[in-house]
Amino acid sequence: MIITVKSNADKDQLNEFQSWLTNQGYTLHPSQGANYTLIGVIGDTSALDARLIESLEIVDKVTRIQEPFKKANRKFHPQDTIVDIGGVKIGGGHFAIMAGPCSVETPEQVIECAHAVKAAGATILRGGAFKPRTSPYSFQGMGPSGLELLEAAKKETGLPIVSEVMDPSQLQYFDNVDMLQIGARNMQNFTLLKEVGKLRKPVLLKRGLSATYEEWLMAAEYIMSEGNEQIVLCERGIRTFETKTRNTLDVTAIPMMHELSHLPIIMDPSHAAGMSRMVRPLSLASTGGGADGLMIEVHNDPAKALCDGPQALRPDQFSDLTKDIFAMREIVIKHNLNK
Amino acid sequence: MIITVKSNADKDQLNEFQSWLTNQGYTLHPSQGANYTLIGVIGDTSALDARLIESLEIVDKVTRIQEPFKKANRKFHPQDTIVDIGGVKIGGGHFAIMAGPCSVETPEQVIECAHAVKAAGATILRGGAFKPRTSPYSFQGMGPSGLELLEAAKKETGLPIVSEVMDPSQLQYFDNVDMLQIGARNMQNFTLLKEVGKLRKPVLLKRGLSATYEEWLMAAEYIMSEGNEQIVLCERGIRTFETKTRNTLDVTAIPMMHELSHLPIIMDPSHAAGMSRMVRPLSLASTGGGADGLMIEVHNDPAKALCDGPQALRPDQFSDLTKDIFAMREIVIKHNLNK
Amino acid sequence: MIITVKSNADKDQLNEFQSWLTNQGYTLHPSQGANYTLIGVIGDTSALDARLIESLEIVDKVTRIQEPFKKANRKFHPQDTIVDIGGVKIGGGHFAIMAGPCSVETPEQVIECAHAVKAAGATILRGGAFKPRTSPYSFQGMGPSGLELLEAAKKETGLPIVSEVMDPSQLQYFDNVDMLQIGARNMQNFTLLKEVGKLRKPVLLKRGLSATYEEWLMAAEYIMSEGNEQIVLCERGIRTFETKTRNTLDVTAIPMMHELSHLPIIMDPSHAAGMSRMVRPLSLASTGGGADGLMIEVHNDPAKALCDGPQALRPDQFSDLTKDIFAMREIVIKHNLNK
Amino acid sequence: MIITVKSNADKDQLNEFQSWLTNQGYTLHPSQGANYTLIGVIGDTSALDARLIESLEIVDKVTRIQEPFKKANRKFHPQDTIVDIGGVKIGGGHFAIMAGPCSVETPEQVIECAHAVKAAGATILRGGAFKPRTSPYSFQGMGPSGLELLEAAKKETGLPIVSEVMDPSQLQYFDNVDMLQIGARNMQNFTLLKEVGKLRKPVLLKRGLSATYEEWLMAAEYIMSEGNEQIVLCERGIRTFETKTRNTLDVTAIPMMHELSHLPIIMDPSHAAGMSRMVRPLSLASTGGGADGLMIEVHNDPAKALCDGPQALRPDQFSDLTKDIFAMREIVIKHNLNK
Repeated sequence: MIITVKSNADKDQLNEFQSWLTNQGYTLHPSQGANYTLIGVIGDTSALDARLIESLEIVDKVTRIQEPFKKANRKFHPQDTIVDIGGVKIGGGHFAIMAGPCSVETPEQVIECAHAVKAAGATILRGGAFKPRTSPYSFQGMGPSGLELLEAAKKETGLPIVSEVMDPSQLQYFDNVDMLQIGARNMQNFTLLKEVGKLRKPVLLKRGLSATYEEWLMAAEYIMSEGNEQIVLCERGIRTFETKTRNTLDVTAIPMMHELSHLPIIMDPSHAAGMSRMVRPLSLASTGGGADGLMIEVHNDPAKALCDGPQALRPDQFSDLTKDIFAMREIVIKHNLNK
Repeated sequence: MIITVKSNADKDQLNEFQSWLTNQGYTLHPSQGANYTLIGVIGDTSALDARLIESLEIVDKVTRIQEPFKKANRKFHPQDTIVDIGGVKIGGGHFAIMAGPCSVETPEQVIECAHAVKAAGATILRGGAFKPRTSPYSFQGMGPSGLELLEAAKKETGLPIVSEVMDPSQLQYFDNVDMLQIGARNMQNFTLLKEVGKLRKPVLLKRGLSATYEEWLMAAEYIMSEGNEQIVLCERGIRTFETKTRNTLDVTAIPMMHELSHLPIIMDPSHAAGMSRMVRPLSLASTGGGADGLMIEVHNDPAKALCDGPQALRPDQFSDLTKDIFAMREIVIKHNLNK
Repeated sequence: MIITVKSNADKDQLNEFQSWLTNQGYTLHPSQGANYTLIGVIGDTSALDARLIESLEIVDKVTRIQEPFKKANRKFHPQDTIVDIGGVKIGGGHFAIMAGPCSVETPEQVIECAHAVKAAGATILRGGAFKPRTSPYSFQGMGPSGLELLEAAKKETGLPIVSEVMDPSQLQYFDNVDMLQIGARNMQNFTLLKEVGKLRKPVLLKRGLSATYEEWLMAAEYIMSEGNEQIVLCERGIRTFETKTRNTLDVTAIPMMHELSHLPIIMDPSHAAGMSRMVRPLSLASTGGGADGLMIEVHNDPAKALCDGPQALRPDQFSDLTKDIFAMREIVIKHNLNK
Repeated sequence: MIITVKSNADKDQLNEFQSWLTNQGYTLHPSQGANYTLIGVIGDTSALDARLIESLEIVDKVTRIQEPFKKANRKFHPQDTIVDIGGVKIGGGHFAIMAGPCSVETPEQVIECAHAVKAAGATILRGGAFKPRTSPYSFQGMGPSGLELLEAAKKETGLPIVSEVMDPSQLQYFDNVDMLQIGARNMQNFTLLKEVGKLRKPVLLKRGLSATYEEWLMAAEYIMSEGNEQIVLCERGIRTFETKTRNTLDVTAIPMMHELSHLPIIMDPSHAAGMSRMVRPLSLASTGGGADGLMIEVHNDPAKALCDGPQALRPDQFSDLTKDIFAMREIVIKHNLNK
């Protein structure tokens, strides 16, 4: 941590401040510039509150050198983390597609959808039973019985399942769910993060709508600090000024997360734009950008398309798409192997 | 709701779509433009999913006419809501200042702080016992015993108390707390919103860091839909591109919330900028803008300022400030009375 | 245009307002809802000021149905525009890579760089002579003599050239430049847009840092309204809350611009992230997303890398990259042909 | 400037880099941490390109200690700048209101409006002759003849005038205009900034819609670097995610600009929200926040309100408002005098 002290700082206050720091075990390296005095603070400064120090009258600016995340930080864990979801691996070169309906609704819907996405190359089944909705008047999902439908589809197809948990009180229903999804709006629900951190089950951590990379990794750090290190990050679009799409998919997150962290990152092109006709280009962009996987919404019955999500693909569209995803992935992989 | 149909829309699909709408009880008013066909949908369209309709091949655009919030909407409740917090009123011309320490730490701190803010004109005591922190390694608050310290200060000074609840499982400790605060990061924690909606206790609903006015009011609607209509909105700064301040206080929220809703709105200038020297100008700006109250952090002991929050005022600064706040409030009130 | 009239609107004012509209030649289609009266305004409403109407006491909301851009709008020009830059085509299935140094500095640099990028498959040479810099104390580019260096490289390699013009007064130097670049900060420099609109020379129109798709197309419309329809759009990253990268490349812009407009769109992955190690993944993401081309910075001399831009690739990195870009482009093209 | 060197940095590259810096006259202060080596660079680092250094393989991060603006920086010019606009002072305790029509249209409009705003306490007349419009099909202003109407009103009322210049080619018409306004979309039109910097005439520099405080001050620095130091900053609302208002007025800019710079800052509440009914609360918020002045749109003829801007006040509304503005200003001033 570097502390910039004002040129007109009161000497007594400065001395008192420096003593306060050294008493906590930090080593100080002051250096005198033309207009400023800088104090380098050496030691584990993650416990120091930068905002607090910045508020002192004698201080001009505080600069963190050390990143505040540790367990999620590639600097301290250079090897890629490989997450195992009921036998399906993601990360460290392993690529997987999660697909399925937005909301779980009927046994037929889930089973048919599971068969269709499996045939097209998806290896994990997704489906929402607890649905976070912006309006209290919208359908809030089937709840526990929706999870049972997913479990039945898993039994029939062998696909491991991922589904969203919104509150610690719902965790009791997720025993047979292979991966817990934390939604974008819960990325900083710290109580929930700690509770899933106590489990030994893979977590799919969606990025908050306006979260920075660091905040996202700090959310992962919350889970990891409780002992659960099986985390897959999921970018699902950030909020921008654009109103013609729901959100803006941030493909730069892929190489940046690979640089900052050892955790795998997958992309959700369905929710990002909120339009089925954008899923194809955004999926291929994500694959080209080096994502470790994709999460794609697929609906089972074109005849009832009106009841499915606007962002879902038909099975035939999904099947066409996965062929090209796998072909592009070959190009990306080949280059990585040559490195 | 207005649906813009593409000029080259398939006639059969259009007919089928119109039947689907009329079967749900809506009346349709089509009108033919040069390049578009518009369909006005008359009836309570709050249950219709605009995104879903927009995804149909024949549809160009969907425009909501009706706002999706009802109980929070001034159109249906023209009278200002007045919220009563242990005898202190906010809204409908009633103005109140909530003040106190950021974190509750010791009995002396809370009692001294409570006396100081009361002497300066504050009528509600604030203090955090459960603290949402972006790092799992930071102090997470005293928890239940912190609430006991606030209750003791309430007993001694008579000031009603407000404190943040982060999860439904903590609600058991808030029986003697007069107002429940929902923090910015929990504004869309829908499970928590529903749970506090089942209580009959005033709620202070902070705006999410990137929430729109409509999303904020939809969060209030979640609480109100469960029966609890005692809500005070609190603007605490939104995220912008600026990095020199923590957040950017949105004073336009005051007149806009007064227009869109009947709920009172107060401002939190301490958290917005995150710097004590910004609290004065932002408090006066908020008062000038017509806020129904303010929430201000005050620390009790200037000698230990290093341990207090960087955004907190000293009692003497707070006392100087409240005089000017009350003087400005007179100017605002006088004009409103003359309207 | 749909005008929502307040339920308590004064009858006289409403009549007066409706006369004002019909006197201007519009046909009105009123329809009565439960809580609102809607007035559909039929005719060319692009001349009506929505903000002005919205400010009337009797009006609740104004909704535009018609998009405000015409010449740039795919609805009125369904065929893809193909732009010809000194013989190189972009759009309508034609894909091209523009590459070269950030700033033009020496004859050797430009010539060597031109040869290198041509050998790797680039077909247009880029280079900056007039440089928009955020600090007045930074190097502002070589100016006219820089353009001469580009022209010499064009003569030697046959590559057409593109370079940025910052002000109408500089246009006199661009006679031999094949394509005029409008920078992101000048996207709404309306005087400049009109002046290049009077020329018959292709324009590369970069998106403003915080511009919406509609504002970007309105900037194109400014140029087209003066008669110049040879425009290539260029996405170069938008401003977001992220501070670890310079900007965030918006790949959704590719399919959205293809839907909204007939103009081609290329991507600039070099400026977006501002880091050379992000150029590869962002280039492949852009190609997968369906871009009509790429603009990539390449420096000529790895030994002097310190003097080149942080976002520039070495020629060998560029050459490795273009192979994979072309391979991915094949996958995208093949699918488009099968449509 | 602090450079964080990677722990695994190549020794030779590091030595070469350090020589490169010392050869340029900088003194280096290295200090060794647990995971990083830090190099403090002492000297005038404003000429060093942080992005370039950050791109080196051995470098982890670069942190600027020195702000990149000098002439606009309060650190080097502690005294408030007082700007004189035809005899009216702004800054250093001097407060002024600029008012007038959005667009100049007829002689009667301008004269009547000038008389009305003068009577209500405004001391500078504003009015637009060259209008930046997002659509090429909208009215672009009267141009030079509009400036003549302003000059006539100045002659009649004695009010100095301020009007927007959009391009250096228009400067020839501004000889009798007392203050040049640079619009938000031209804040980074560097050619224009340099040209007005060569004049000796006060400049009103509006903040760009998404500009940070530093970018705004760097735009001022561009003007000042050419010798013109008579600059008044003007906050006019920033772009946020909110769609119910045009822009979001940032009142925190007032105390922050007063801290960072010696230049005065005024607020434009009319353009910020784009609604006349928001002008009053935003004006009072701005005054409470400590602004050095206000710029407010007023239209002259309520009967023709339909032709005036939606954000303009009627003269009677303006006159009611200025009374309260001046009363609030007294409260702010009294406190400042006691400091």
